[in-house]
Amino acid sequence: MIMTCLFCQKPNPIDFVHQTKYWNVFLAWDQTYLGRCIVALKRHCGDLAELKKEEYDEFIELVKRLESALRKSFDATMFNWTCLMNDAYQEKNPEPHVHWHFRPRYNHKVEIAGLVFEDLEFGHHYDRTKKREISEVAKKTIVSKIKENL
Amino acid sequence: MIMTCLFCQKPNPIDFVHQTKYWNVFLAWDQTYLGRCIVALKRHCGDLAELKKEEYDEFIELVKRLESALRKSFDATMFNWTCLMNDAYQEKNPEPHVHWHFRPRYNHKVEIAGLVFEDLEFGHHYDRTKKREISEVAKKTIVSKIKENL
Repeated sequence: MIMTCLFCQKPNPIDFVHQTKYWNVFLAWDQTYLGRCIVALKRHCGDLAELKKEEYDEFIELVKRLESALRKSFDATMFNWTCLMNDAYQEKNPEPHVHWHFRPRYNHKVEIAGLVFEDLEFGHHYDRTKKREISEVAKKTIVSKIKENL
Repeated sequence: MIMTCLFCQKPNPIDFVHQTKYWNVFLAWDQTYLGRCIVALKRHCGDLAELKKEEYDEFIELVKRLESALRKSFDATMFNWTCLMNDAYQEKNPEPHVHWHFRPRYNHKVEIAGLVFEDLEFGHHYDRTKKREISEVAKKTIVSKIKENL
């Protein structure tokens, strides 16, 4: 565990979606794409190539479960998975920590918690210039819906 | 095999980097990030969650081999892995085919084949507005260097 590493900290309980033996899943603060989650390895490890077999095997099961849960919850159409870790390299002594960005994508509008989510870039790369922070109440509703279907 | 699916076709021999039992690796036409490759499943399959265990296991080995080869070839600093498949959903009847975008990232300039590659966004998300097509001679030199180190 690295004290200065964001992903070594316990996720905020409000954002917490799921955990397995090796991975934590939490709702991303940016909900431009409804149900966007971060899937972070519990152990501090900086490179995808250094994952242990059991960590990979569990990740594969998580891919299946999360995609299925988001289909059931909001009828997500397809999914973008990215493992980037760029930000860590802005530091003089980079301490990257393996985590995945999971972005469900939608070919239709979804209404939940009094909010409307519309994936205006569907069929195209996600738009990083858009950021959408939502209320704690809305977060709770979304997290609870995903948990129901996991 | 789907006749209209780009990833079901054999890669152009000039771009061809490597193949395993289940995956093809070829150099991406856009070399903004030196050594960028596409890692495409040989079988037509539209969702990461539908990969077979043996396909996943082999992919994990490929991650290790490719990262190692790019470190040896050009001293790549770190790597971005993305599985998106957005474009397929621009069609009325989407036929997505699992493929990964592998982008080596660099904290230093690299000169090869008379060209200079500089990762001006290092530490940040890749820039999709930049596109860099290179000559066939330069492609051959880059592919050959990666192959040497695989």
